[in-house]
Amino acid sequence: MLNKVDANRQTDSKEYKSEMKTLEKQMTALQESIQQLQIPTVIVFEGWGASGKGTQIARVVYPWDPRFFNVYTMDKVTEDMRMRPFLWPYWTRTPARGRISIYDKSWHRIMLPDRTGKWKTAVSGSPDLLYDINAFEKQLTDDGVLIVKLFLHISKDEQKNRLKELEKNSETAWRVDEKDWEQNKNYDQHLAHFSQMLQRTNTSESPWHIVESNDRKFAVIKIYKIIISSVQKAAEKLMQTNKLVHAEPPKYTGKKFLHSVYIKNENDNENAEKQKRKKSSSQGTITEKEYRDKLELYQKNISALGHRMYIKRRPVVIVYEGWDAAGKGGNIKRLTEELDPRCYEVIPIGPPSQTELSNHYLWRFYNKIPKDGHFAIFDRSWYGRILVERVEQLTPVPVWQRAYQEINEMEAHMYHHGAIIFKFWMHIDRDEQLRRFRAREADPLKQHKITEDDWRNRSKWDLYEEAADEMILKTNTPFAPWTIIESNNKKTARIKVLETVAATLDNALR
Amino acid sequence: MLNKVDANRQTDSKEYKSEMKTLEKQMTALQESIQQLQIPTVIVFEGWGASGKGTQIARVVYPWDPRFFNVYTMDKVTEDMRMRPFLWPYWTRTPARGRISIYDKSWHRIMLPDRTGKWKTAVSGSPDLLYDINAFEKQLTDDGVLIVKLFLHISKDEQKNRLKELEKNSETAWRVDEKDWEQNKNYDQHLAHFSQMLQRTNTSESPWHIVESNDRKFAVIKIYKIIISSVQKAAEKLMQTNKLVHAEPPKYTGKKFLHSVYIKNENDNENAEKQKRKKSSSQGTITEKEYRDKLELYQKNISALGHRMYIKRRPVVIVYEGWDAAGKGGNIKRLTEELDPRCYEVIPIGPPSQTELSNHYLWRFYNKIPKDGHFAIFDRSWYGRILVERVEQLTPVPVWQRAYQEINEMEAHMYHHGAIIFKFWMHIDRDEQLRRFRAREADPLKQHKITEDDWRNRSKWDLYEEAADEMILKTNTPFAPWTIIESNNKKTARIKVLETVAATLDNALR
Repeated sequence: MLNKVDANRQTDSKEYKSEMKTLEKQMTALQESIQQLQIPTVIVFEGWGASGKGTQIARVVYPWDPRFFNVYTMDKVTEDMRMRPFLWPYWTRTPARGRISIYDKSWHRIMLPDRTGKWKTAVSGSPDLLYDINAFEKQLTDDGVLIVKLFLHISKDEQKNRLKELEKNSETAWRVDEKDWEQNKNYDQHLAHFSQMLQRTNTSESPWHIVESNDRKFAVIKIYKIIISSVQKAAEKLMQTNKLVHAEPPKYTGKKFLHSVYIKNENDNENAEKQKRKKSSSQGTITEKEYRDKLELYQKNISALGHRMYIKRRPVVIVYEGWDAAGKGGNIKRLTEELDPRCYEVIPIGPPSQTELSNHYLWRFYNKIPKDGHFAIFDRSWYGRILVERVEQLTPVPVWQRAYQEINEMEAHMYHHGAIIFKFWMHIDRDEQLRRFRAREADPLKQHKITEDDWRNRSKWDLYEEAADEMILKTNTPFAPWTIIESNNKKTARIKVLETVAATLDNALR
Repeated sequence: MLNKVDANRQTDSKEYKSEMKTLEKQMTALQESIQQLQIPTVIVFEGWGASGKGTQIARVVYPWDPRFFNVYTMDKVTEDMRMRPFLWPYWTRTPARGRISIYDKSWHRIMLPDRTGKWKTAVSGSPDLLYDINAFEKQLTDDGVLIVKLFLHISKDEQKNRLKELEKNSETAWRVDEKDWEQNKNYDQHLAHFSQMLQRTNTSESPWHIVESNDRKFAVIKIYKIIISSVQKAAEKLMQTNKLVHAEPPKYTGKKFLHSVYIKNENDNENAEKQKRKKSSSQGTITEKEYRDKLELYQKNISALGHRMYIKRRPVVIVYEGWDAAGKGGNIKRLTEELDPRCYEVIPIGPPSQTELSNHYLWRFYNKIPKDGHFAIFDRSWYGRILVERVEQLTPVPVWQRAYQEINEMEAHMYHHGAIIFKFWMHIDRDEQLRRFRAREADPLKQHKITEDDWRNRSKWDLYEEAADEMILKTNTPFAPWTIIESNNKKTARIKVLETVAATLDNALR
């Protein structure tokens, strides 16, 4: 994409001052629209060494109120970054609504051969990288984020001159290093790499803008114009999408996974319940001795596997979803009991805070991604989007429908980095839940665990079941499969989770 | 402190099982009290290599619900840590109310000669380190945080045996490194260093508990007992402090700094106002040309100094406080205009969120501490505690009164790390504020900047002025001085800020 671009375009220097004045005013007005329309805005600066990224970023923010933007220098790959998926530092720095994030160098760099190697799991040019990048950009733009991607292009000679200039001045000499000279020396090779990077990540939602930057004045005017027209387009798009959000959800006609987990009983009187409980427990009985033995065995296994995970630097993500009172807490407790507590974190997920609501839905989960060698155990999770948010109509239909793919993409991104992912649906039947609710109400120590919300959720059982069925159908991927945990019997449920984790980890860490 | 302790104490193994059972039950109950009483709890594990910190942490959390604690391994000093004050990673990991943070290795380590060197600014054994540590612990305990400090002590022989054991087993061999053997070889020297560390950081609020750990069973029982009695004491203390919070604030009789900044006019009619404005502007007049020239000069200076800051790895903290409509926004804009935007962040401070409220008051500011070479510019700040929170009675009297010292200590901690600190009080007089409020109301583009809150605050002018006077008196330290910026004239105000920053930075970065 670059070899046909002449970096040498010039501005008419007579007109420059007055044009700049007009553009600066437009930029100031623009920032106010960004705030008023609450458009989260991402501006990416990529380009050659010494192409003037710093100077141009300074020009871009010049007309803006410094309280509403953040500039991030993403050049250096720290150990914290290396121990997580490569999009993690970008996800955690995405702008909240009405704010602007500017990145000096960006996630696209991972497409460059000399950059890829900084992540142990990334293979240069691998389709995974591209898949992850495209998913990231699409997810942001779908959420209303504007992404402006700028590549600052200079010619070989211009770069050489600039590096010499910088070196001459004692105040700027420290900014030039060997890598800059290496880039200049092997300019053509780098040109090919940059071109490929641009080509592959040039999506229709967020295309690249190549900025001919030999002449700084030409460059700043072009950049201003690109940003101005991009924000205008985003504002128009926003008006359109605002009209779209009130659709009816299509009826789910897919497979029903949960319906047949326990045998249903039509006549629900006391006797029938007892009988049924007998039946369902026959689907999972265990003696106290068996339970103790297996618990000990698998807990020991998993504890040892934790060490292997740590040595092999593989992260593990475990998601717990399921009915209220299905026994998630006790199950998690048994899972972690013998683990080294320095290697895991249990993350309870409640309703989002104001800050979380003003960011992309997945932002708060990206902030909790485990580093290599560690477990992150989510007590409820991102699946809230397509469970409670769907059923309680907290989120417009097209938005939660989009989430199936978004979630698959997020999990794929973790998987590409080497994560081992478990998703447990803790299943009890309607009667068992009723019994547990009543038992909680009767126990003074457990009364606080049962609220009106629980009863309200229960009254929507069928809606939740449909949502869970569709969730399992659409997010049951080979790299992040669902396991349904029959939980009418708490002990067999615990053993099944432990068994699943032990077997899968053992297999993955050989 | 250690050389008189015999690490070799044994538990009666017959009684062990039943005693553990009782203690585990007490620990479970304890965690529920911590949640109910909302006591933030910090548990520190220090000790010899191979003294069993990992195992004992696992024992401690065993009876607890894993959703309410976090375990942090603080062994490694990352670059992110090195670029900030040494307490930063601990402050940002303090527990919210009702939660538990467990640190495997801790801030006390900086007292050890081999650890100090990881921070460029820290001098081994320097009184600054001790001052900072004691302030940290006192601030947390004053806020109701319980700190339990445990040192796991083993003898030289025991350590040797354990290291050999670990090395023998292929699954644990990776946990032993040269440093462990070095520690064992020079056991006596390390004993002296540990002893000194314990002695110096053994405060009455949070004393050290030495746990004789040759016998693991003895150790776990002792640790359980220490934690149980510490939480009980904290609960009692909480009951007492709850009684204390309703005191009358003592009358401020200190110096009045702000009263005489502008000449007051008793008869406030239109004419008098005009006259007065004339007078006050004579305290700060400037021609347009002078303004432009100085603006350009100082902005260039500061931009160049920004590079020096970066090279010398010094961080800069700038606080803006002052009256509503004093012109903070425009002033900040002029300060940052010519700075490299990759080197500063402007942080607007609003009312605290729910999350922020459930942590220590200073927690959110520690999260925003600039890294070396960077500016952090606070648009309002931690001084809200002794301004708005005092005047609006949002915070009990003894709590905001304590804040003067807490703030001085926080700023001292930044200073010890090498930070250059500016604090600007943007001062306008009552009449100028009225004029600006009215001008804003008349301007359709600025109407949103004036709210009922502003008028309400204005009606409490005298209370705010007293609060600001007392703030300046009590927090005007040599390392973090206040500068009063006469801001009736916005241009002279901007020049004064720029001049102050340029001169001070130039002086500090020579």
